[in-house]
Amino acid sequence: MRVSHLFTKTSKEAPADEVAKNAQLLIRAGFIHKEMAGVYTYLPLGKRVLEKITQIIREEMDGVGGNEISLTALQASDVWQQSGRWDDQVMDVWFKTKLANGSELGLAPTHEEPLTKLMKSFIKSYKDLPVYPYQFQIKFRNELRSKSGLMRGREFWMKDLYSFSRTQAEHDTFYEKISHAYDRVFERLGLGGQTYKTFASGGSFAKFSHEFQTISPVGEDTIYVHKDKKIAINEEVYSDEVLAELGLNKDELVQELAVEVGNIFTLGTRFSDPLELSFTDEDGESKPVIMGSYGIGPSRLMGLIAEHFADEKGLVWPENVAPYRVYLVRIGDSEAVTAKADQLYERLTQQGIEVLYDDRDERPGAKFADAELLGIPHRVTVSERLVEEGTYEYQARIHGEVKLLTAEELLGTLG
Amino acid sequence: MRVSHLFTKTSKEAPADEVAKNAQLLIRAGFIHKEMAGVYTYLPLGKRVLEKITQIIREEMDGVGGNEISLTALQASDVWQQSGRWDDQVMDVWFKTKLANGSELGLAPTHEEPLTKLMKSFIKSYKDLPVYPYQFQIKFRNELRSKSGLMRGREFWMKDLYSFSRTQAEHDTFYEKISHAYDRVFERLGLGGQTYKTFASGGSFAKFSHEFQTISPVGEDTIYVHKDKKIAINEEVYSDEVLAELGLNKDELVQELAVEVGNIFTLGTRFSDPLELSFTDEDGESKPVIMGSYGIGPSRLMGLIAEHFADEKGLVWPENVAPYRVYLVRIGDSEAVTAKADQLYERLTQQGIEVLYDDRDERPGAKFADAELLGIPHRVTVSERLVEEGTYEYQARIHGEVKLLTAEELLGTLG
Repeated sequence: MRVSHLFTKTSKEAPADEVAKNAQLLIRAGFIHKEMAGVYTYLPLGKRVLEKITQIIREEMDGVGGNEISLTALQASDVWQQSGRWDDQVMDVWFKTKLANGSELGLAPTHEEPLTKLMKSFIKSYKDLPVYPYQFQIKFRNELRSKSGLMRGREFWMKDLYSFSRTQAEHDTFYEKISHAYDRVFERLGLGGQTYKTFASGGSFAKFSHEFQTISPVGEDTIYVHKDKKIAINEEVYSDEVLAELGLNKDELVQELAVEVGNIFTLGTRFSDPLELSFTDEDGESKPVIMGSYGIGPSRLMGLIAEHFADEKGLVWPENVAPYRVYLVRIGDSEAVTAKADQLYERLTQQGIEVLYDDRDERPGAKFADAELLGIPHRVTVSERLVEEGTYEYQARIHGEVKLLTAEELLGTLG
Repeated sequence: MRVSHLFTKTSKEAPADEVAKNAQLLIRAGFIHKEMAGVYTYLPLGKRVLEKITQIIREEMDGVGGNEISLTALQASDVWQQSGRWDDQVMDVWFKTKLANGSELGLAPTHEEPLTKLMKSFIKSYKDLPVYPYQFQIKFRNELRSKSGLMRGREFWMKDLYSFSRTQAEHDTFYEKISHAYDRVFERLGLGGQTYKTFASGGSFAKFSHEFQTISPVGEDTIYVHKDKKIAINEEVYSDEVLAELGLNKDELVQELAVEVGNIFTLGTRFSDPLELSFTDEDGESKPVIMGSYGIGPSRLMGLIAEHFADEKGLVWPENVAPYRVYLVRIGDSEAVTAKADQLYERLTQQGIEVLYDDRDERPGAKFADAELLGIPHRVTVSERLVEEGTYEYQARIHGEVKLLTAEELLGTLG
């Protein structure tokens, strides 16, 4: 993509009412636009980041047997009344609306109820289980306050997978399997080192659920981390009793602030009982389906990654998440420079390397500042002097060291 | 994908309240699930069809310089009040809702207003134009009745591109260009032969807009078609005066029912005037931006394609839109048959050919009936007898003719 074809521009300032650093940076860099608190438009660069995060999650969910679907935002009340979650006092984040005929509808803040009901069309016998439908869907949550940018949205993207199993043992096996898939997701997103599988409260059907918590100064949760064992305990369940149960020694744990980037949850028969989702087992007996839910928020992850890796110059995207891998800066517009830069752009693009090519008539300083604010991992510069020398100037965004490279060295570095 | 891993099943009947043939078929085949009238969940096969349609449109929009973004469903009232479209009497398809603090919000039925406002951050000078942002987004329309399945949804997918141009001439050039891109979209979707660029009412800034209308007995619009010139006139503007203006002779036109699958519209300064989106031209003068809007409904297209090509046995997907290209039927489960079918599945998959492999323990008749209902273009059968003969049975869904093919002939046919 040529920067001259990109309609967004960087700006020195974010809206005055935007207090979250992730949103401030992403707005200044032209990745997102604020519609209202907690509601953001994804502009071309932001859309690309969101797609990269989504695709990594999709591959790992397909890898554990997921079937991708897309449920609806508009929700009739009946199934939510059956589960007891239609009442605004019980679930306090509903946006409600009305059909033209007056019937009340809700905008889905989550999808356990409609999916449980839907599965009744397809699950009859033990032969139909286990199954793992999942989706990427816009969720709506009517948060009273929404001051954390992409980290806590009123309209945001969520990956939610639901497991439907015959027995607790079958459920437990899948629960372990998807837990490892989550590890791979955060590893691929560049957050592996700082992300801990964390014991959290479990509800009626399991002593614990598990959150995936990324240590970060902007975290809203407090967790107690065992670095060697790569696990943590959320303060909500932190007690001597739990420590003893997990065989952990208080002295080995470190208190940290963290952001919840995913969670996995044993639902048991919480929804299959009221909505009557059952199956006939090998002996002809009717049994309720054992369920689990598994969430990851792609838009929250985008906000966290933006905020977590940023430095004083701007965004710093990990390689797998960056909207483009290379920022190609053309200094000057002489025929030789333009030809050289165009040629490199074509060559890299043909090799499948995604390049954002700054072909604008702008001062070098402005181009370099934009390269830093946008946070593209690899910067390559072509100028009159460099063309004469037969080299390219290369800079890695992450540490800023500058090198002069030949064409072959450059391709080796980027390849 | 193995059918044994797909959680959906076919059924003999659709819900009694579903009157649209497209939805009846798609529900019976397990492509979609009805949540309420005009609101459908996309199940794995349906999601794949929707993605294929989306990707074809995306490629053609990128081809005319589109920049993909994603606007929001939740809408604050201010911009819509400025344009005069917040009032439920003016735009009668609003779903309205409320923030926890009581402010009224709307669910976007279209996106001219928020995008026009957003572009004020990026358009200042003639150098910033022209630009063509577009998105695939869920739209919400509170239709009084919704009885046409995917063809008229209350929650549905829309591709909407908006053009921002300096002059009428620049706008007109792009309008022609995207019109040709639309032709290519419908051609690739298998609807090229039946789809006509149709003169329709234009609003304040152009005598005509243009709809893309696909001739179909299920159409809700009446158009007058000139087959040779490949154009048509919507009855809403059909008059002797318009015929004369277009140089068409009444006797050469045929009246047809048709489905609107796309539209392109000159907005002029309808939105840039009230929302004050202007630019500074080469002479330093401030001018309003000239806009256009260009819609295609991927979910409506899915419904139309389903309904249009179906026969008495079920769905018949065009090659580019089918969820899988090959339906591989294994008859029996002897070691020889299973090995042969598994091997073919691996081989085709490795070649990038998408295969739905019916590996279930089911009667042959049930498998063949499912293959027909699902409408996958190519059916390949492996059975004991065929393994002994060293052949595969091949059937094209579209005409049903059966052939016996060697492995090489089969690969040639599918390749």
